[in-house]
Amino acid sequence: MKRIVNFSAGPATLPLAVLEQVQAELLDWRGSGMSVMEMSHRDKEFMSIAQDAEKDLREIAGIPANYKVLFLQGGATGQFTFLPMNLLRGKTGFDYVLTGDWGKKAAKEAGKYGKVNIAASSEADKFTRIPDVKTWKLDPNAAYVHITPNETIHGVEFHQEPETNGVPLVADMSSNILSRPIDISKYGLIYAGAQKNIGPSGITIVIVREDLIGQAVPSTPGIFDYKQMADNESMLNTPPCFSWYVSGLVFKWIKENGGLAGIGERNARKAAALYDYIDSQDFYRNPVAKADRSRMNIPFTLANAELDADFLKGAKAAGLSGLKGHRSVGGMRASIYNAMTQEGVNALIEYMKEFARTKG
Amino acid sequence: MKRIVNFSAGPATLPLAVLEQVQAELLDWRGSGMSVMEMSHRDKEFMSIAQDAEKDLREIAGIPANYKVLFLQGGATGQFTFLPMNLLRGKTGFDYVLTGDWGKKAAKEAGKYGKVNIAASSEADKFTRIPDVKTWKLDPNAAYVHITPNETIHGVEFHQEPETNGVPLVADMSSNILSRPIDISKYGLIYAGAQKNIGPSGITIVIVREDLIGQAVPSTPGIFDYKQMADNESMLNTPPCFSWYVSGLVFKWIKENGGLAGIGERNARKAAALYDYIDSQDFYRNPVAKADRSRMNIPFTLANAELDADFLKGAKAAGLSGLKGHRSVGGMRASIYNAMTQEGVNALIEYMKEFARTKG
Repeated sequence: MKRIVNFSAGPATLPLAVLEQVQAELLDWRGSGMSVMEMSHRDKEFMSIAQDAEKDLREIAGIPANYKVLFLQGGATGQFTFLPMNLLRGKTGFDYVLTGDWGKKAAKEAGKYGKVNIAASSEADKFTRIPDVKTWKLDPNAAYVHITPNETIHGVEFHQEPETNGVPLVADMSSNILSRPIDISKYGLIYAGAQKNIGPSGITIVIVREDLIGQAVPSTPGIFDYKQMADNESMLNTPPCFSWYVSGLVFKWIKENGGLAGIGERNARKAAALYDYIDSQDFYRNPVAKADRSRMNIPFTLANAELDADFLKGAKAAGLSGLKGHRSVGGMRASIYNAMTQEGVNALIEYMKEFARTKG
Repeated sequence: MKRIVNFSAGPATLPLAVLEQVQAELLDWRGSGMSVMEMSHRDKEFMSIAQDAEKDLREIAGIPANYKVLFLQGGATGQFTFLPMNLLRGKTGFDYVLTGDWGKKAAKEAGKYGKVNIAASSEADKFTRIPDVKTWKLDPNAAYVHITPNETIHGVEFHQEPETNGVPLVADMSSNILSRPIDISKYGLIYAGAQKNIGPSGITIVIVREDLIGQAVPSTPGIFDYKQMADNESMLNTPPCFSWYVSGLVFKWIKENGGLAGIGERNARKAAALYDYIDSQDFYRNPVAKADRSRMNIPFTLANAELDADFLKGAKAAGLSGLKGHRSVGGMRASIYNAMTQEGVNALIEYMKEFARTKG
């Protein structure tokens, strides 16, 4: 067996210790005689897995008691739809702040269910910064203000929560959830697909303040009605059990690795090492405003785009994969989520240095 | 490691050979250096997994070229909603035939999107038979006629397709898909959650005649718009990759085990053995009309319900699990999907005999 250093933007690298545990108990989960894939979701074995996962998530993220935690089918893209259906609450529309392509997509889907006000956008700057909060045109009657705290494609991240003057702040945290300590109480709702910092794709976590749910529009599918799912412990139907289980193992791994404080420090160090190198020379370049740079996704370009293919080929040969930038922006991107080690980042930097030295 | 004989209704037992392969390649899928859980869905490794799965499914089920195969997020319950949204096609309503609780749930969700005509129902008979097709009150202008070919809770199964006079026949085949040869061309659409005969929960397969899609109502979420998903090879968003991968291994296992013809023969033998025993004595009883009995889910009651707890306790001790009947009907239920072996069924029968001998 060999393992590569995987910089994929998602699905993404998982902690090796978690994968080894999954492998060890794959045919017989802790003496149950079954794989987790084979368990009825109503059996006490799976119920304990599900409840432990929620308990550990609440503990590591410090989720207050007046917030519900839902484990839903599918990915964040599904919530682009179900979020406005659940949270319209008799209002007429929503505020969306666009700092990248994912926020744009979210706003577009929301437009099917209410009036979307683009309160701010950095599209004119090719999404290389967060628009100054002072310039946001917020609607005090909006059902919520939606932000994408980390934009995976553009590598732009909010480093503090914006003030929304009582209007619930809603965040698609798919690509930076659990990457550092967070004050949940500043949000009305947080949602995140699992496949970056949590576990395998196919499950989405929603953390929602309980006073915001229970008024879904009538056409909301039952299994995506937050209130119904909260009342049924996310088991109105068969949940994505295996993804839930692996997510729970990742939560335990975070606990054992210093919690969000420890994870956050390591993430800051990893990102700083790569940005410091990029900023120290002219061959590679990151276009994002320094104050708004992502700790999770670091896009960079080569001085000469004709060398891109060579760079990727050499990286692959050196055991570094998933570095190709998103097709919409080109260049490279290193996604360095929680499970990426400092050694992996160091190996990338060494490779970049050597490539620049020989081809620059 | 011990493995139990698992009669759970779903999630359910999987072929041991498939689980062993998943385990062997869990940390490094065929020299890629990654777990399947860590692969970008856009990478060639995962693309080959996805495409192979579709190819094998088309081959074993004999899916005609004018049918699209979709691998969607979530379970069949989600499709209770997305099916009517996709297939209304300018009509005003749908025909639903109720032969159990799942059909009832499907009809209820469809009512949010159009007029539901209950064309036939056996609820007055406690869902112990299929209503005679001659008595069905079909609407010739319905968007489709919906049936549930196998009702998991009640153990009732269609053994041939009803004639719907040109109105598309739509089937929730979650609990008997791939259990025997099937003539796909008799259906407009088939859908099935994976967690009985296919793979881990969290993925749903839709097989749809291509002329029926492309007219979804405007409020349909993009990722559940069959046409958009067909045009994007089910990858408009990150799919449930790991469930897709395991499903593909199950398709290969079916190919290697005689295809649907071989599987169907074995399923018929397994079910016959259990029904023959039940019908040969008075201690256990199955209430379903003989012509409509399921080959997948076999509910049975004990002569004295006060012995139920003892029966389950003894079964567990004998390594037989998941036999408790659904709470809505009580008694017992043996779910004997494709991956259940003849030896497993024989072990159950032997246990039932011994229990009846000592407690009857």
